[in-house]
Amino acid sequence: MPDQNSLRFVTLVGSLRRLSFHAAIADSLPELAPENVTVTKLPSVGLLPHYDADVQAEGFPQSVLDLGNAIREADGVIIVTPEYNYSVPGVLKNALDWLSRLPTTPLAGKPVAIQSASPGIFGGARAQYHLRQSMVFLDAQVLNKPEVMVGGAASKVDVEGRTITDQQTREIVTAQLKAFALVAMQRKLLNS
Amino acid sequence: MPDQNSLRFVTLVGSLRRLSFHAAIADSLPELAPENVTVTKLPSVGLLPHYDADVQAEGFPQSVLDLGNAIREADGVIIVTPEYNYSVPGVLKNALDWLSRLPTTPLAGKPVAIQSASPGIFGGARAQYHLRQSMVFLDAQVLNKPEVMVGGAASKVDVEGRTITDQQTREIVTAQLKAFALVAMQRKLLNS
Amino acid sequence: MPDQNSLRFVTLVGSLRRLSFHAAIADSLPELAPENVTVTKLPSVGLLPHYDADVQAEGFPQSVLDLGNAIREADGVIIVTPEYNYSVPGVLKNALDWLSRLPTTPLAGKPVAIQSASPGIFGGARAQYHLRQSMVFLDAQVLNKPEVMVGGAASKVDVEGRTITDQQTREIVTAQLKAFALVAMQRKLLNS
Amino acid sequence: MPDQNSLRFVTLVGSLRRLSFHAAIADSLPELAPENVTVTKLPSVGLLPHYDADVQAEGFPQSVLDLGNAIREADGVIIVTPEYNYSVPGVLKNALDWLSRLPTTPLAGKPVAIQSASPGIFGGARAQYHLRQSMVFLDAQVLNKPEVMVGGAASKVDVEGRTITDQQTREIVTAQLKAFALVAMQRKLLNS
Repeated sequence: MPDQNSLRFVTLVGSLRRLSFHAAIADSLPELAPENVTVTKLPSVGLLPHYDADVQAEGFPQSVLDLGNAIREADGVIIVTPEYNYSVPGVLKNALDWLSRLPTTPLAGKPVAIQSASPGIFGGARAQYHLRQSMVFLDAQVLNKPEVMVGGAASKVDVEGRTITDQQTREIVTAQLKAFALVAMQRKLLNS
Repeated sequence: MPDQNSLRFVTLVGSLRRLSFHAAIADSLPELAPENVTVTKLPSVGLLPHYDADVQAEGFPQSVLDLGNAIREADGVIIVTPEYNYSVPGVLKNALDWLSRLPTTPLAGKPVAIQSASPGIFGGARAQYHLRQSMVFLDAQVLNKPEVMVGGAASKVDVEGRTITDQQTREIVTAQLKAFALVAMQRKLLNS
Repeated sequence: MPDQNSLRFVTLVGSLRRLSFHAAIADSLPELAPENVTVTKLPSVGLLPHYDADVQAEGFPQSVLDLGNAIREADGVIIVTPEYNYSVPGVLKNALDWLSRLPTTPLAGKPVAIQSASPGIFGGARAQYHLRQSMVFLDAQVLNKPEVMVGGAASKVDVEGRTITDQQTREIVTAQLKAFALVAMQRKLLNS
Repeated sequence: MPDQNSLRFVTLVGSLRRLSFHAAIADSLPELAPENVTVTKLPSVGLLPHYDADVQAEGFPQSVLDLGNAIREADGVIIVTPEYNYSVPGVLKNALDWLSRLPTTPLAGKPVAIQSASPGIFGGARAQYHLRQSMVFLDAQVLNKPEVMVGGAASKVDVEGRTITDQQTREIVTAQLKAFALVAMQRKLLNS
């Protein structure tokens, strides 16, 4: 039974690859989160069709409705994503494009934290600032700091073991989850 | 038969809606282009699956190969797109994500012009700057000016008639096509 | 005497021109703000020298210390700025560059609202998103909505009369001030 | 005596600190440039006053006119800059703000290359993309690749010796200068 002191976070993963760094990081969050916080993965963004206003006119696909509902019920959304072409992956952006069309936007007022990772040194940083701009329109409450950008991910994330192996990365992710829980709890109290 | 003085431009449309402003604008470009320039529409970005590295590992989908080849053969690419959530539509970005993975990136060194349109006053401007950032990675040669951002598109574009009706918009689009043809011709000469 | 139910906002103006739209808008905010809110202008960003680490090493200029203190004492900062060259005016960014070097950053955790204006149709929108990116680093709490971008400012702002004359613009500014006061009050309560 | 096969590049340094990484990198460029290329530093951006339309109305300051003329005479401009607050330093942006107001914008059509450096891992990357957006307005021809972002600059740049000591950094800078010279030479031929 949910109580006032617990928080439910959900993760939105920006890549479809089965053994992606991003899904593995998402899978590692439950063990790094504060005690009163549960973290579960949202359905894959790959389940949604391409956004098409003609399709929308015939009714929202069930996959979009489901994703929207799961976000609405959460106390916060953690986006874990790669950077593609110096920006947000199309497949992740496509999910946001659908969500933004729902009658009540699930992300409005919702606490959001961003984590990115890449094999290179920037760790997906460029995707984060584009994502933040979309979040202004969506009126999400995006955590400023600490920023989580996991560069050199190949040596820091065990994709088979579904865990972050690098100690420094574990610490920054843990710190972000803690800061995010504080913000989400404040918002929960303000809304209650 | 192609000759040295002719140019072939292709359009990449960022929305899937059948009666979108963007497809209608793309359809109006042949009549606005300089005499020696042909403009044809590329296959819909909606034909491509979501980018997935696991799918790529099994071989590029034919739709991606076809899109890549069509771009390689063109002297320039004109992207006509809406702005979704203050950024590039996911479905358009997804096409770029696929294209960027092809062994020889079709957009490298390719002249690119951007046109956006929206019902609101900004005409999709925010999508353009995000798109430009991706084009740095893709090493495309993006035209600076004139910028084409068609605000209030509902009264300027006839989506049934597949044409731009607003005179001022026709003029700025014509000016962009002329400037783009000049750049593309210079590049063609440099590469020949 | 300050009480718990009152708020003190300060405005940071991004242009130096005496009769700028931006200073005039800033001057009009006190009459548009909610009853319990005072709005005063910060010292001009033109009083600060160019940021120079060698100057900083000899001690922060008094103008920087003064600006930092005035921001620290405020419950929220409203930035009113033009867009120069598709970005933030150098002179405004320079003030942020100085502020970011102060031992305790005055903008950390501070509610910030952004207003921009220009003679053209975009109303300075492009400056706002660059400013928001800097605010991530500064850890400011930037209001998402409503966004205030005053296009066609020449017919909406009376720079001699120091007021906004356009009714629709007055309404959106009033709405932003109200939304901003709500956020600032929540933060004040959380910090008390 | 200038001949058709030689190129003159100028550097615009974004920081004022005497022993900045950026000025040292700028000083190292002449020895890394191709044989037919000279590289000289432009006057410091710190010499320009804050941009103020009221000052402009009384006549452009001599420092602005001088900077504009020096850029006009060059075959290309290399900007070497830090990142401040996830964006372009105010003092550098201020110089661009002045330059953009000159009757004939010196940067229009001008080849521009960007180099950034920082003590941190990103090497100033975030400043580069904001700078590129301003360059769209200024209609400069900005080199896409290779991008030069010198992270961990403290161990790669000898600020006393005015040189880049890290071999890999020297190579990427050399490669950029070579690519930039090719582009600038093409433009010179097109304009001649």
